[in-house]
Amino acid sequence: MQNTTPESTYKSLTAELDRLHYLESTLGLLGWDEQVNLPSGSADHRARESATLADIIHREATQPKLGQWLECLENSLANLSRDTQTVVREARRDYDRNVQIPAEFVARKANAQSKAYHAWAQARKDSNFEYFSPFLEEQLRLAKEEAAYLGFSDNPYDYHIDQHDPGLTGERIEALFTDLLAGLEPIVDTILGSKFKADPGIFRGFSEAGQESFLRSVVERLGFDFSRGRIDRSLHPFCGGTGADTRMTTRFSEDEPLDSLFGAIHETGHGLYEQGLPQEHLGSALGKHVGMALHESQSRIWENQVGRSRAFWDFWEPPYRKAFPSQLAGVSSEALYLAINEVRLTPIRVDADEVTYNLHIILRFNLERELFSGDLAVKDLPARWNELSARTVGLTPASQAQGVLQDIHWSGGAFGYFPSYCLGNMLAAQIWHTLQRQIDGLEEDFRMGEFGRLLNWLRRNIHSLGRQFDTMQLTERVTGQPLRPDSLLRYLEERYLPLYS
Amino acid sequence: MQNTTPESTYKSLTAELDRLHYLESTLGLLGWDEQVNLPSGSADHRARESATLADIIHREATQPKLGQWLECLENSLANLSRDTQTVVREARRDYDRNVQIPAEFVARKANAQSKAYHAWAQARKDSNFEYFSPFLEEQLRLAKEEAAYLGFSDNPYDYHIDQHDPGLTGERIEALFTDLLAGLEPIVDTILGSKFKADPGIFRGFSEAGQESFLRSVVERLGFDFSRGRIDRSLHPFCGGTGADTRMTTRFSEDEPLDSLFGAIHETGHGLYEQGLPQEHLGSALGKHVGMALHESQSRIWENQVGRSRAFWDFWEPPYRKAFPSQLAGVSSEALYLAINEVRLTPIRVDADEVTYNLHIILRFNLERELFSGDLAVKDLPARWNELSARTVGLTPASQAQGVLQDIHWSGGAFGYFPSYCLGNMLAAQIWHTLQRQIDGLEEDFRMGEFGRLLNWLRRNIHSLGRQFDTMQLTERVTGQPLRPDSLLRYLEERYLPLYS
Repeated sequence: MQNTTPESTYKSLTAELDRLHYLESTLGLLGWDEQVNLPSGSADHRARESATLADIIHREATQPKLGQWLECLENSLANLSRDTQTVVREARRDYDRNVQIPAEFVARKANAQSKAYHAWAQARKDSNFEYFSPFLEEQLRLAKEEAAYLGFSDNPYDYHIDQHDPGLTGERIEALFTDLLAGLEPIVDTILGSKFKADPGIFRGFSEAGQESFLRSVVERLGFDFSRGRIDRSLHPFCGGTGADTRMTTRFSEDEPLDSLFGAIHETGHGLYEQGLPQEHLGSALGKHVGMALHESQSRIWENQVGRSRAFWDFWEPPYRKAFPSQLAGVSSEALYLAINEVRLTPIRVDADEVTYNLHIILRFNLERELFSGDLAVKDLPARWNELSARTVGLTPASQAQGVLQDIHWSGGAFGYFPSYCLGNMLAAQIWHTLQRQIDGLEEDFRMGEFGRLLNWLRRNIHSLGRQFDTMQLTERVTGQPLRPDSLLRYLEERYLPLYS
Repeated sequence: MQNTTPESTYKSLTAELDRLHYLESTLGLLGWDEQVNLPSGSADHRARESATLADIIHREATQPKLGQWLECLENSLANLSRDTQTVVREARRDYDRNVQIPAEFVARKANAQSKAYHAWAQARKDSNFEYFSPFLEEQLRLAKEEAAYLGFSDNPYDYHIDQHDPGLTGERIEALFTDLLAGLEPIVDTILGSKFKADPGIFRGFSEAGQESFLRSVVERLGFDFSRGRIDRSLHPFCGGTGADTRMTTRFSEDEPLDSLFGAIHETGHGLYEQGLPQEHLGSALGKHVGMALHESQSRIWENQVGRSRAFWDFWEPPYRKAFPSQLAGVSSEALYLAINEVRLTPIRVDADEVTYNLHIILRFNLERELFSGDLAVKDLPARWNELSARTVGLTPASQAQGVLQDIHWSGGAFGYFPSYCLGNMLAAQIWHTLQRQIDGLEEDFRMGEFGRLLNWLRRNIHSLGRQFDTMQLTERVTGQPLRPDSLLRYLEERYLPLYS
């Protein structure tokens, strides 16, 4: 390499990272389209498209010249700016991971994921775990194979946790979850033993068109930029794409209007994070999110701390009544607010309230650990699910569709992802208490339908930083404390105990 | 290459062609999504995604090993099956073309096309050609540059015609169009001079939802397989994707319900062709369409020869009245049929009836020839459009949006495409007369809502052949005659003169 400076090498590196970013976002669009638009008979075709592109991406991401550029930059790291150091550090992490995973494996995994997704959708429809079982076994086998490539043969589950939240381990999460569970139990007992009960029967016949129109106005007012994003429908709500083209989904049921609304607010939290990342750096670590727990903290703050607050509904109740005048005619404000903050046991994670939701995650975390350790065989999963569900969540699902088949994640090989939801809940509460200390009259803003100061604070303190810090570092930097369950427990007590006692 | 046989080399070749096919269909999905879903602010991002993928495809399509395999197969061509010979011949054509066009050019063109598309959409909205003009100049410049790479520096327009319909030239088309125009003029004069006039005022307030539901039932009954395809909405209707996942679009206006319906039937003709190609060979010439004129002949047969026939409406009129009872209450069957076969001058090509449509194409063909020869500068295009429109179509558009900006094609660099529409009309009529000779009681089928015999004939005689023959060869093979304007003129006389005299 003659006539190269660290500056020119860095420029070559980021140009290549940008190319990779565009290929990856194209692969993301194939995935979004698969869940939103794909005709049922085109699944195999899509699997091949995705596998072919994944294979190309893998080849591009493992070009030896990337390794050479990184080495060259690492040799003069001390002279480079902190931003450059961040980009090089994260590019190295990605590069090493990609080099250690064979291209053949990547294509095989993409193909198997697409097939497993469709098998899961069919199995869930038929409430028939046996149909999905071989696909899940394959996913688990692939997950262990992948971990082995990266040197995690002895602790493959830790590898998958690290993929979602770098630096965390199964052991560390277990310690956090043990403390959380201990603190949650008395709160859940108090609420479930209360004589105050939300009335789920108050929601009937909310037209899909009316729900969609209302939630769009909410999503827009929270700050989501529709000129760089969309919201559509899918079986399982998600937020995909990047800040340049953010694709959220929700789903509708005429008798569960809060499901589509809070689903949309949740995904909006994700979408706002993506749209708030530095758009000029989307290809490098400076423009990427920190990890899944932090991503989830953003969706949870908007969904729960903001969206279920009295102040929020002081503003939104009148337009909600205007959108559904006859449906809400006999419902008092207090009954509406209690329904929004209903706590009750349900077998379905995504239907769960923010109190008992954490129990669902602890259930999945324990099952994943057992699947990865080999203590639990896939064929025994439905029975073990029901057994642990009775113990942790407090009930046994009535069917496999309502139990072990309810979540999309495992069909996509996304093991080690579930814990991030609960870690995100903890982090959301910890950030929320920090926010309240730092912004005067925040809830007064919500009462006026103003969410700009909140969004700007999140942009300044979190979104704009990209991946400069990892989850634990950023938590301490933003909240002044390591991640702990205390804030979440305190927040739940503050919000729910007054309502239920 | 040791231990290789022609068979193993052919296997390697088709595996690589399949990979290319999946990458190309992914690029196609980026294009479909751009027109159906893309947020306005995400155009630049999409342009970069498309350019990056186009660049990858170009690199993959020009791998030296492809050239080596082709050479190896060409050396033993006489011993290979006819199918294999077809695949090798067409793969060679594509390979040579790809090798002669630099990767850098491909990326530049994809990027410019995406930007030009959005500029065109904006310019059309504002009826402001000047805004689009530099983008069109760039498209024309790129089109000439591309032709030059392929050795067409002296006749760049012929290169673009050849891209759409191999073997045809500007000169040959001019001869066909001259004869057609001479035959068309008396027909148009007779119709426009007739005292019988369709009443466009009979269509008012046809809800979009009602239109969509009706056209879906039509499209499905014609044989379109919704398990391998979709129909959505876009500014300009089109049919994209492949037979494995066919994506059609239409557009709605409450006072022009025939526009969405016949647009959808037209795209269904394209879609049925794609779905009828041998699905196991989608990656090679055995599973690809012959060319644009033939593609258009398929859409035109379904739209016009079938969809505007009395027999077709004998079946569909009752359900149409059921779908729109109040709107059609005062409309007689004869008035409805006349409206379906309305002939009147309009400045808008896609609004034109099947008689005067051909005049719009002849206008564009002449303008494209002048743009490519250099006789016409882009800045003078609006004035020249109006002048030639008055002479050929018989009227001057009221605005640029209604004139020179009405079509999407040039924004995508699709020069030499327009003639295919008119060639397709000729071919459709020629196939139609052949069909009528070969299938007894075809129109009786339509009267019963049966379209299977027609579709099967098209599948057997055209769709299933893939690209074994070129347009002119297939025309002779199927119809027993070279392509001529006679059938189209006779068909138009048969259909329209009884209605208008």
